Amino acid sequence: MRTMRFFLLIMSVVLPQHISGQKILDSNQSDPNAMEWMQGFPPSEERTVSAIDGSFFQFPALRYSVCHMRQFMPTTEVKASTDRHYKFKVKLDSNIDRVTFLPTNSSDMMTFKEALGVNYTDGLLILHKGKIVYEKYFGALQPDGVHAAMSVSKTFTGTLGGLLVEEGLLDENKTGVDYVPELKDSAFGDATIRQILDMITGLKYSEDYSDPKAEIWAFSAAGNPFPKPSSYNGPNNYYDYLKTVEKDGNHGEAFGYKTINTDVMGWIISRVTGKSIPELLSERIWKPLGTHHDGYFQVDGAGIAFAGGGFSANMRDMAMFGEMVRNMGKFNKKQILPEALIRDIMKGGDKEAFSQSAYGSLKGWSYRDMWWITHNEHGAFAARGVHGQTIYIDPKAEMVLVRFSSHPEAKNAKIDPTSLPAYHAVANYLLNK
Amino acid sequence: MRTMRFFLLIMSVVLPQHISGQKILDSNQSDPNAMEWMQGFPPSEERTVSAIDGSFFQFPALRYSVCHMRQFMPTTEVKASTDRHYKFKVKLDSNIDRVTFLPTNSSDMMTFKEALGVNYTDGLLILHKGKIVYEKYFGALQPDGVHAAMSVSKTFTGTLGGLLVEEGLLDENKTGVDYVPELKDSAFGDATIRQILDMITGLKYSEDYSDPKAEIWAFSAAGNPFPKPSSYNGPNNYYDYLKTVEKDGNHGEAFGYKTINTDVMGWIISRVTGKSIPELLSERIWKPLGTHHDGYFQVDGAGIAFAGGGFSANMRDMAMFGEMVRNMGKFNKKQILPEALIRDIMKGGDKEAFSQSAYGSLKGWSYRDMWWITHNEHGAFAARGVHGQTIYIDPKAEMVLVRFSSHPEAKNAKIDPTSLPAYHAVANYLLNK
Repeated sequence: MRTMRFFLLIMSVVLPQHISGQKILDSNQSDPNAMEWMQGFPPSEERTVSAIDGSFFQFPALRYSVCHMRQFMPTTEVKASTDRHYKFKVKLDSNIDRVTFLPTNSSDMMTFKEALGVNYTDGLLILHKGKIVYEKYFGALQPDGVHAAMSVSKTFTGTLGGLLVEEGLLDENKTGVDYVPELKDSAFGDATIRQILDMITGLKYSEDYSDPKAEIWAFSAAGNPFPKPSSYNGPNNYYDYLKTVEKDGNHGEAFGYKTINTDVMGWIISRVTGKSIPELLSERIWKPLGTHHDGYFQVDGAGIAFAGGGFSANMRDMAMFGEMVRNMGKFNKKQILPEALIRDIMKGGDKEAFSQSAYGSLKGWSYRDMWWITHNEHGAFAARGVHGQTIYIDPKAEMVLVRFSSHPEAKNAKIDPTSLPAYHAVANYLLNK
Repeated sequence: MRTMRFFLLIMSVVLPQHISGQKILDSNQSDPNAMEWMQGFPPSEERTVSAIDGSFFQFPALRYSVCHMRQFMPTTEVKASTDRHYKFKVKLDSNIDRVTFLPTNSSDMMTFKEALGVNYTDGLLILHKGKIVYEKYFGALQPDGVHAAMSVSKTFTGTLGGLLVEEGLLDENKTGVDYVPELKDSAFGDATIRQILDMITGLKYSEDYSDPKAEIWAFSAAGNPFPKPSSYNGPNNYYDYLKTVEKDGNHGEAFGYKTINTDVMGWIISRVTGKSIPELLSERIWKPLGTHHDGYFQVDGAGIAFAGGGFSANMRDMAMFGEMVRNMGKFNKKQILPEALIRDIMKGGDKEAFSQSAYGSLKGWSYRDMWWITHNEHGAFAARGVHGQTIYIDPKAEMVLVRFSSHPEAKNAKIDPTSLPAYHAVANYLLNK
């Protein structure tokens, strides 16, 4: 159970706190500095948290841990640039705090500034035409620190997958088994690269944490970097688990947002390039961008990066990535990703498959190369992770927004109502400025 | 036993391989890239190593692990500079490879180049008058990577302790309990700051790994960041262990090289400054130097850095530190450490106390602020760690030498014979150049 709980938590989906009937601390009350998590020499017992028992990832301790993931677990670097560091121009616009919007779950207008607290924001940065117009840090996030990206990690893996398709190293019509023969008995064996990249696979895989038989537990136990119980006889790492995934339904029919698609894509990418996801991300994207700070991935007991959710990175570095994508792959005087790849991502995935999924409330959206495409009138698209992480790109408004958060709930459905309309309102403000 | 073994290994003192009667692989045969440790997706079972069972720290896997410590355990950063990165001038001198010396355990002359392999060197850098005259990388070490510093870590903690004495924040005549009341029942309670800094304390503490009752096991188990066995009821972190250390003999009489002196100094430093050793090292030394790469410390389950041995750092960054000390605390246009502190270190510690210790074979040496002072005709002094780590400063020759190694044996007595005379020979070469 200890193992299970750990992985419940590192998979970043915690059970809502209010189930217990307790009042949830607001963003000020839960400020991790004021709460003194892991502060003092030694920290007090009640403020000491750990990955082993999962306590580090329970709100409000979560608000500390998201900025210190590697203090709790083994990791491997995504190396930053060692030269040609990119420096953003900064031209802050204090009006942004006063931009108002109507949350989708309310009839009361809210200001952009009010939304920061409501969403337990740890950091928010907005670029307009490449210049920083807004940049704030809260909680445990420091300008030179990093924050857990949660499922924003998927977008990096998906983008690398799309890049290899574009470069011809992967054929999007070939299947998993064509690249990783060990997948032959797995559901991924006959899934195409395109189906995996767009998560339109039919997988017997539940992320229902209330079900002790849900497959998420087996995946989590396999990837646990800590000692396994002596009774454990399951797979010993992420890849070994992926070989055992069973099929449910047909591939190509419906969008199913399942983390293991990303991890199998990570495996395929590593097999064909001979590089780990952290290495390839550093070489192809992080270093060329001119990033300032090493990012990192959590790893399992075989050193395999958790491609579906284990990335932590610096906020300005994240913004460089977003701005590069907004500029059709070009940044810091280099064409870092092919323009055709970005065009393909922006065109989006299968809207019909998406509309039939559990994410149907995101009306008209689609999913492509592990990006969320809004298909709104600005052509906005985003990387998204639980607890409020995002890189939101609005091409029409020439805006890139990065937010790191530590919202008590892991469900973006709770966070989107005061986020998506806020982003759109700022985009409109910048567009008309 | 699994816990014990893990800590045997992270304490960096492995049992000699030849006990088993096997022939030890030489430096070429044990090249970690050729051996493919943790390479492949996934790595093969026989090339997968782990901190949990200690396999990552057994030679020859050790040769991979020393450059990837954080892939195996929780860590916390020693942040590098974010601006004013220092760039060394480089003027390589190929003659250094041909400098010859007489190893102290042989009657056959050896070249400096030959000694590289004999010592399983992973990296060696020599500064002469502040310029890089020699710089080589082997094995798993990359120019932009880091390497475990082992007990060279102690020198950083000791230097910070000396700095606080110099600045008056610590009184070297006061005792442990004056700063950390929790030490009142510990042997450190009545040890002075000076005695702790120079390791002339009387401690009931054995690092004899062949004795299952040696205190090292209890210290190691306390600091283990992995889940403790359910039967475990000992201290839960480094500090909790330090409170339990018993006295053996009197303080002030003999030099006793025991890691826990450094860890208690780390505690005292953190208590009086309110900062962890990684934070303070970054703030006072690593950032001012203009280092390029974050270093890191391994941490225990309470987030406490292993001050006595847990540091990993980049080789050029290490060289900046050495050059700063050689220049009496000045570097990168800043006085980083007080000149008086460096003078005090160079003057050395109690030679009489040193000569009576197990390190008496280092004739005429002493130990001060966790530096080893040779008192040779060049006034050389060094930071030293097992498996061959060193920062060796030769003031007369205006030379700083940094070496990272992964020698099969943890005993420097096996490594010094082909190292110390080699350093001295290069110093003489540079002096007469």
